[in-house]
Amino acid sequence: MSKISVGIINVTGYVGAELARILMRHPNVEINSVTGRSAVGQKLGDVFPHLAALDRTIEEKLKDVDVAFSALPHQASAEAVVSVLKRGIRVIDTSADFRLRNPADYPRWYEHDHPSPDLLAEAVYGLPELHRAQIARANLIANPGCYPTCSILALAPAVQEGIVEGHIVVDSKSGVSGAGRTLSLNSHFCEANENVSAYALRGHRHLPEILQELNGVSRDGPVSLTFLPHLIPMSRGMMSSCYAQLKRGKITADGKGELALRTLYRDFYKEAPFVRVVDNPPQTKQTWGSNICLIYPTIDQRTGTLMVVSCLDNLVKGAAGQAVQNLNLAMGLPETAGLDMAPVYP
Amino acid sequence: MSKISVGIINVTGYVGAELARILMRHPNVEINSVTGRSAVGQKLGDVFPHLAALDRTIEEKLKDVDVAFSALPHQASAEAVVSVLKRGIRVIDTSADFRLRNPADYPRWYEHDHPSPDLLAEAVYGLPELHRAQIARANLIANPGCYPTCSILALAPAVQEGIVEGHIVVDSKSGVSGAGRTLSLNSHFCEANENVSAYALRGHRHLPEILQELNGVSRDGPVSLTFLPHLIPMSRGMMSSCYAQLKRGKITADGKGELALRTLYRDFYKEAPFVRVVDNPPQTKQTWGSNICLIYPTIDQRTGTLMVVSCLDNLVKGAAGQAVQNLNLAMGLPETAGLDMAPVYP
Amino acid sequence: MSKISVGIINVTGYVGAELARILMRHPNVEINSVTGRSAVGQKLGDVFPHLAALDRTIEEKLKDVDVAFSALPHQASAEAVVSVLKRGIRVIDTSADFRLRNPADYPRWYEHDHPSPDLLAEAVYGLPELHRAQIARANLIANPGCYPTCSILALAPAVQEGIVEGHIVVDSKSGVSGAGRTLSLNSHFCEANENVSAYALRGHRHLPEILQELNGVSRDGPVSLTFLPHLIPMSRGMMSSCYAQLKRGKITADGKGELALRTLYRDFYKEAPFVRVVDNPPQTKQTWGSNICLIYPTIDQRTGTLMVVSCLDNLVKGAAGQAVQNLNLAMGLPETAGLDMAPVYP
Amino acid sequence: MSKISVGIINVTGYVGAELARILMRHPNVEINSVTGRSAVGQKLGDVFPHLAALDRTIEEKLKDVDVAFSALPHQASAEAVVSVLKRGIRVIDTSADFRLRNPADYPRWYEHDHPSPDLLAEAVYGLPELHRAQIARANLIANPGCYPTCSILALAPAVQEGIVEGHIVVDSKSGVSGAGRTLSLNSHFCEANENVSAYALRGHRHLPEILQELNGVSRDGPVSLTFLPHLIPMSRGMMSSCYAQLKRGKITADGKGELALRTLYRDFYKEAPFVRVVDNPPQTKQTWGSNICLIYPTIDQRTGTLMVVSCLDNLVKGAAGQAVQNLNLAMGLPETAGLDMAPVYP
Repeated sequence: MSKISVGIINVTGYVGAELARILMRHPNVEINSVTGRSAVGQKLGDVFPHLAALDRTIEEKLKDVDVAFSALPHQASAEAVVSVLKRGIRVIDTSADFRLRNPADYPRWYEHDHPSPDLLAEAVYGLPELHRAQIARANLIANPGCYPTCSILALAPAVQEGIVEGHIVVDSKSGVSGAGRTLSLNSHFCEANENVSAYALRGHRHLPEILQELNGVSRDGPVSLTFLPHLIPMSRGMMSSCYAQLKRGKITADGKGELALRTLYRDFYKEAPFVRVVDNPPQTKQTWGSNICLIYPTIDQRTGTLMVVSCLDNLVKGAAGQAVQNLNLAMGLPETAGLDMAPVYP
Repeated sequence: MSKISVGIINVTGYVGAELARILMRHPNVEINSVTGRSAVGQKLGDVFPHLAALDRTIEEKLKDVDVAFSALPHQASAEAVVSVLKRGIRVIDTSADFRLRNPADYPRWYEHDHPSPDLLAEAVYGLPELHRAQIARANLIANPGCYPTCSILALAPAVQEGIVEGHIVVDSKSGVSGAGRTLSLNSHFCEANENVSAYALRGHRHLPEILQELNGVSRDGPVSLTFLPHLIPMSRGMMSSCYAQLKRGKITADGKGELALRTLYRDFYKEAPFVRVVDNPPQTKQTWGSNICLIYPTIDQRTGTLMVVSCLDNLVKGAAGQAVQNLNLAMGLPETAGLDMAPVYP
Repeated sequence: MSKISVGIINVTGYVGAELARILMRHPNVEINSVTGRSAVGQKLGDVFPHLAALDRTIEEKLKDVDVAFSALPHQASAEAVVSVLKRGIRVIDTSADFRLRNPADYPRWYEHDHPSPDLLAEAVYGLPELHRAQIARANLIANPGCYPTCSILALAPAVQEGIVEGHIVVDSKSGVSGAGRTLSLNSHFCEANENVSAYALRGHRHLPEILQELNGVSRDGPVSLTFLPHLIPMSRGMMSSCYAQLKRGKITADGKGELALRTLYRDFYKEAPFVRVVDNPPQTKQTWGSNICLIYPTIDQRTGTLMVVSCLDNLVKGAAGQAVQNLNLAMGLPETAGLDMAPVYP
Repeated sequence: MSKISVGIINVTGYVGAELARILMRHPNVEINSVTGRSAVGQKLGDVFPHLAALDRTIEEKLKDVDVAFSALPHQASAEAVVSVLKRGIRVIDTSADFRLRNPADYPRWYEHDHPSPDLLAEAVYGLPELHRAQIARANLIANPGCYPTCSILALAPAVQEGIVEGHIVVDSKSGVSGAGRTLSLNSHFCEANENVSAYALRGHRHLPEILQELNGVSRDGPVSLTFLPHLIPMSRGMMSSCYAQLKRGKITADGKGELALRTLYRDFYKEAPFVRVVDNPPQTKQTWGSNICLIYPTIDQRTGTLMVVSCLDNLVKGAAGQAVQNLNLAMGLPETAGLDMAPVYP
């Protein structure tokens, strides 16, 4: 069987480089073109020594490929994606540009009008655990953000089954690679090291994604939700700690309820090869470098509060790994192809 | 003026060593006795090179001093404290043994009956921002836990003023020094590094402290509260991110409400030299090595949710520094004596 | 082709767990038995969640397998190895117990007599870059230490070609995982974090390995060498910075000499798939999680000093990865089988 | 006694901010002016929350003060220093601009001609342990670099006493704050974290300082020395590991020699309040946040090699703290005034 020819637009950021790292070992794929906004003309291995085994030169313009991954930042990505789609290339976009279905969300959350609002209806939100079937038919897949992946997977079963009520709190913790390779004081070593900071207290851009998808599965109307992200002194890893009040008459706040809750979550994810509902509180390191998402739903029995702790690697299941998972679904490959790496420990 | 003679019981843990570090520079204090459960007979500077300037030998039994700090773990501390009090020595206990007023809380949360339940009534909970006057008269001061200090200071103004209702969520993040100097797999470098973990999901021992103190200031009856602590890959630092719904008719969920909220918090802490209510989200590093607690109250205007982010150094304001602050109050010294160190940055 | 059946003795340490992580993805291998000194009877995935995909139970006694890896500490390993060899199982021992050919080195460096000195002659030092042919025929392979692998690979070309003279200095830096999973104050997070320490100043146990192998390739008699290891606040990664004076009349201390030096090293390693002689100073992160060793030989032209900087991942090329490389050679597989993972970045 | 009025030129870098942190607690000093290249007009506490207790606004031009500290980068500093000196203000310059006595070293190592070569003769190299008397009389003090401070203090006793011969190797390890607050990929969190890198293999700018000062104390003519710096994933801390061959007939390579060596070093530093010659290998953390330099001289008895390990905090004894020590000497204050902070541990 011939390999699928893929390209990576903007390989020089962390998500682009991670796509290359994963795809270079994918048994059904050949990376035939990588582009960059910087470093054009340089060997990929000179810019990223860890990719030296992949003999490619960074180009200005994408070659003809079967599928293109865009790892550009938002707004720049939309422009590139539109032009690539026109060339008949399927696109998996890791930016936010096609994640939100409501065009009005773009000026509100991203401070610019969407350049191709018509494409928003066509794009599929690439969270395989919720939209597996649509992804298989999509020409344009909007790869979810890291916080949304971690938080939606933690809450979707509870929201869909209607076991919670009232206000939901999502307190997320992310490693610094989520802030990208672009230099900034927040990502400067001595500023981030030995430090925790809360940020985006006026509202983070990933919030509308979380709401869109949870509202999409909710039986009880739109959810009310506060989302607060925190920067943690580590390179990779993400945790969402989610809190909501149990609705009366559904799951009980006792040991029996715990078991019912665990079963509910296991049933929800029984077809999902990368989601593991676990019996003990997970740690981000247990997902480090892999496409696995660990979910631990439990109950604060004293107060009848649902607590769900979810963990993933923000650059893999939270970005590049999930994009490859979407490629697999879109191209009819096994969902796990090229994604069988175990987490790295310690 | 002659110096106050102090002793440190169990100087060999992180809290004991931090007490020595702070007290050795205190202008009104002389450290005359340090004891250890290990390392008896050794020079303090041989065990802790950073304390080499303090020429003391680790003893088995505390000398006669004016004030003793106990840095023993719970249960062991109670026994030592009882015996030291009988010698007429005032005690500041950094363990949990005298923090809870209800004796029934000890078997429930600490799995042992309290050895001296009568002393619980006499002990004063040493959070100066709430109990300054009682501390000044106390013979036995129960120095608060790190999570309670960080979380109570974040929430006390809101609870006392009755501006929130419903369930409160406290999501806390702590550096690894909070787990102490005793070896454990969770504190093993390669396990804690590049990792975030949630723990104590069945209920953390610091929860009853938080409830006791918030209930003590509440006008609206007992609070309902979920507390979840997280381990962060850094040595020092603690953040509590607190969430609660604003009560209707009090603080409004808009810019005006933000200002009113800030004013309410500033008024509450106007006599507190170590609490700073800030205008921007704080970071734990901004308190590193100092006795400062930073508090940022704000509003998720979209959902009418109060969010309070508080930061401190778990070993200073969360332990040894607060103990020295209590010493100052108990001995009629300026509250800030010996505690004027600025945070270390970067 | 049927898979090779392998077992891991003492899977519960860092090297054992890393062997499992690598071998579970090896296309020609099946892990049929894992033993532990602790956790016997538990599921491997309960002890190490990152290995949950490998459905094995930790056993007390090794099953019959084709090849056994021993990840026991020294002395305990020798005993286990002897008994396993008697069962006709080939052994790759990651401990130090069969690395030194001179039995007198064991009491001197390891404080115990060797239990089976006769086996020392039979054992092959498993550094493929020096002993590829012997490894292919060996029943007992002594997998090198991490420091020796990093340091010997850095210096062997220069020593064999006789381009240096006088005293050699090897200053090595290691991540904390090199100290293993056994708890110790040095590996306690708050002690190792934000800290560098030099250790083993009276002589490190890896020194005789380095000397044995460099003397083995030396044309000019035994080398004189000082080796000093340092502990670095990171989980994985190792660097050796090596210094020696250039011998007159060989490589010149100028740009031309630099090129000749690079060529000499490239020639030496032209058959070595995991050693890359690079044109720029390498960083340990460029090898993180992979079996790659990067070597940068250069000249301090001002003083005529050879400087060689080498990097590897102490748990992969410095331990488990190299052991798998030895398995491949011993079993006639491609040297790179199961070892094609790219370094993880960032 | 009235306080000395001081100013800090360019308070917005790490060295400038550290000067402010130390000086704000100095009992004999008042900070009356702070300038910045950025952030002019802002409150110091808004830019650096850890300095909020110091109520100062960042100015464009330095006020009239008794002593000015320049924390500008090299070349920019020289210009500022010349102009401040003309106003009759004594200057302590933390840049490299007045450290080298030979004007030819500037084009060679710093790629620019020195703007005021005449001042080089007047400037005093501010390493108190070598030049205490001259510092007391100096109008212009060139505060040493961090690597030179750490390395010269490690080697000066051995070089002055002539106990070593042949080539010297200095292998240094530095925390990332040494690279400053200016953004760069090398200081980007995800690049520096979990990584060690060697850099400046073509020669580091601190090398001529080290040579100048060691040659200055050498009895045996100019030293031959290779210096290689390494970047370590921590914020603060520096270690130099130094290696040289013992000269025959001086110190013997045995236990007796060890004691003689220790005595030689203790004698050399008997007047130095911040240098401690220790009996056990030091760790950088044992100096964290303090002005202490720990020095451990020992012998590789097997090969007759002197090994000296020295540790300090690169921002304190390696920069701002030493500058304050120089201020004390220049103004006739006790050498330790304002510098009595103990290292922070853990």
